[in-house]
This record gives sequence, C-alpha cells and structure tokens, in this order.
Amino acid sequence: MEDEKISIAVIKRLPRYYRYLGDLLDNGITRISSGELSRKMHITASQIRQDLNKFGRFGQRGYGYNVEMLYKEIRKILGLDKEYSMIIIGAGNLGQALANYGNFSRRGFNFIGIFDKDKNKIGMKVGNMHVQDVEELDAFLGKNSVDIAVLSIPKTNASQITSILVKNGIKGIWNFSHIDLRTPDDVVVENVHLTDSVMTLSYKLSELESNN
Amino acid sequence: MEDEKISIAVIKRLPRYYRYLGDLLDNGITRISSGELSRKMHITASQIRQDLNKFGRFGQRGYGYNVEMLYKEIRKILGLDKEYSMIIIGAGNLGQALANYGNFSRRGFNFIGIFDKDKNKIGMKVGNMHVQDVEELDAFLGKNSVDIAVLSIPKTNASQITSILVKNGIKGIWNFSHIDLRTPDDVVVENVHLTDSVMTLSYKLSELESNN
Repeated sequence: MEDEKISIAVIKRLPRYYRYLGDLLDNGITRISSGELSRKMHITASQIRQDLNKFGRFGQRGYGYNVEMLYKEIRKILGLDKEYSMIIIGAGNLGQALANYGNFSRRGFNFIGIFDKDKNKIGMKVGNMHVQDVEELDAFLGKNSVDIAVLSIPKTNASQITSILVKNGIKGIWNFSHIDLRTPDDVVVENVHLTDSVMTLSYKLSELESNN
Repeated sequence: MEDEKISIAVIKRLPRYYRYLGDLLDNGITRISSGELSRKMHITASQIRQDLNKFGRFGQRGYGYNVEMLYKEIRKILGLDKEYSMIIIGAGNLGQALANYGNFSRRGFNFIGIFDKDKNKIGMKVGNMHVQDVEELDAFLGKNSVDIAVLSIPKTNASQITSILVKNGIKGIWNFSHIDLRTPDDVVVENVHLTDSVMTLSYKLSELESNN
C-alpha cells in the first residue's frame, strides 16, 4: 500500500469492491480487467483504476487484476484479517435479527453476549446466546474482552449505556439507536439510522414525482 | 425554496436536521441561532447557514431560525408531508423488526403487507399483519397501491422479486439484501448494506489501532 492517505470516499467503496471480488472468487474467476469490473459494478473503469491503484500494483496492463491478491489486500485494509468479539445491547427484533445473521460470524465478527433490561427477555435464547440482564453489563465487560458493542436500544437509554461501554474500554460502537452518540476520539462509531434512510428514500420518491 | 439544485451531501444531512429540529419542538423551543444549533449538532455554524439558507429565509439576523417553520419546510422537502404504503418481502428477524418499528408509521410510512416463501412463516402474525405467501405478491400488487417495497431477503432471490415489483409499478425499493439491484431510472433504491457497514467499522478500528 502506498503512503498516500486513503480518502473516506474510497473507504466507503471498499466493502463493495470486496463483495464483488468475493463473488468473482466464488465463481472461479482469478483475474479481471478494470473494464469488465466496471461493467459489473457500474463504476467507470478510470474510477476503479484510480481506487485500486492506491493499494499497490495489483493491476497489470494487458493482464488485469489478480482477483485473489486484491481481495486479500482489501480484506486486510478493512481489518477483516482479524476476529472481533461483539456484544448486542437490546434484544428486541433488531437485536435478534443481528444476532442471527450468519454473515457476520462468517467474516470474523463473533457475538459473545446479548443484553436487555426487559425481565421478559432475560434468559431467552437468541442465536447461541442467552439474554443477560443489562445490569450485568458492567461486570461482564470487566471479565470479557469485547471489541464492538452493537446498540439496538431506544435512544433514551443510548447515552447512559455508551458511558458504561466507554468506561470499560470498548473501542467500536455500531449504533442503531436513533441518536448521535458523543464519544472520545479513541472510540469509533458507525451509525445505521434506519429512519434517516427511509426519509432519504421518500425524498428520492418526491424528486422522482416532481420531475415527471 | 430557491431554484438552486440541492446537492446530495445536503440531502443526506436533512434527516439529521429534521431529527434535531423535532427534538427542539418537543422541548418547546421555537427559535434557535445557527451557533446554538452548531453546538448541539457538532456542525459548524457556517455549514448550517449554508445548508439551511437553501430552503428560504428561515433565519433572521439577531433572531435565529424559526424552528417550526424550518421543521415543516424540511418535512416537505423530504416528502414527509405525504403518506406511503409499504410492503415487506422477507418475514425473517429483520423483516419483523422493521414491521414492528413504530417510528415508521408515526412518520407516514404504513405497512400494508408482509410476504415470505417459508411455509412455516405464512399466516404468522407480524405487527398488525399476517404473513402472506410470496407467490401471491404479483396478485397483491395488482389489487393494491404500494409506494415502497422493503427487501429483507437473501440476495439469491432479490433480483427475481425486484422484477415483479418493477413490473407492477413500484417506484421505491428499500433494499436490505446484500446485492446492488438493477432497476430502471424511474425506480429509486435506498440501500442498507449491514455487512458493508460493519466492515466500515472494522476499518475504522484498524485505523485507530495503527495510529496508536
């Protein structure tokens, strides 16, 4: 990888490259030209060359990209060559959906605990875990190494839970609560705001209508 | 609203403005300066002025923004002054989570049907709906007006279902399937790729580590 800092726009495109390269590997395709990849991904070939050249010399004129090498390099850049232990706070439908989603563990994201404050949920089996009382969260974090906490709770409790997580040294928060979390600089947050997303969709629909 | 075209970056910020303005209204705050809003939202005041001035004269020097007027204007721009009928394809954990999420109907997104191909799920009650056989989807769309279809199914079936939706005149697809859908220009797609999102988080974690 070259020294040049990779822009956030490129980073946002990396999981998509990774997904397409993985599909190519699954189909036994070992090399691909930027032109072919361009047609598959609906990105211009020059954009692809510009993006992928940042990671080293995986493309060769007249040969194309070595799919496996590029796939492995992107995996490394995305931090997917490591394993992550995760917990879920909030065992509602969304928390359960995430716990049961096989794609995560396949990629090295391993759930080791799920918590809720609802007495009716505590003890319930979700995936291969049993829901624990969120009152036990602090003690659990004292005894277990956790890389990422998933927040799938209402926004009213999100800040208080975040304090407990930060205090216990959690460095990554995947936030589904409908609130912007305030965290120290050495804690990274990735937001999935579903309500914002559906509003973006209704905006696009309105635009579509007003253009017709 | 001024004639000037609103950029995609501003559009992406609009749901966030809308969320903060809604919270202000809930707390009985009727006006706010760009400085105060800046401190709350952690965006620079000049960015806020630049964004919000695009929608007309809601800010006045020495007065600040009229929260309610701005809130209503953004609501209109986001298309939230209308009601949308929605269906969900895929009644797994994620589909159920979305069906049960009260925030959507409160904002005018109304679920009118949920479908699955799994015989064990058909007939099951989800929210105030009963899961229907996805084989009935085509007939259902022939009889009901649907604005938005939510895809919460594995990627293997996503393209085929999308064809049925497009054929029946669905204009909005909220796609949770881990695939990029190909749709005509007059069909808008909003993607929520959870696997891409968690990869972005692991990238940020790796960056954090390498900077320490």
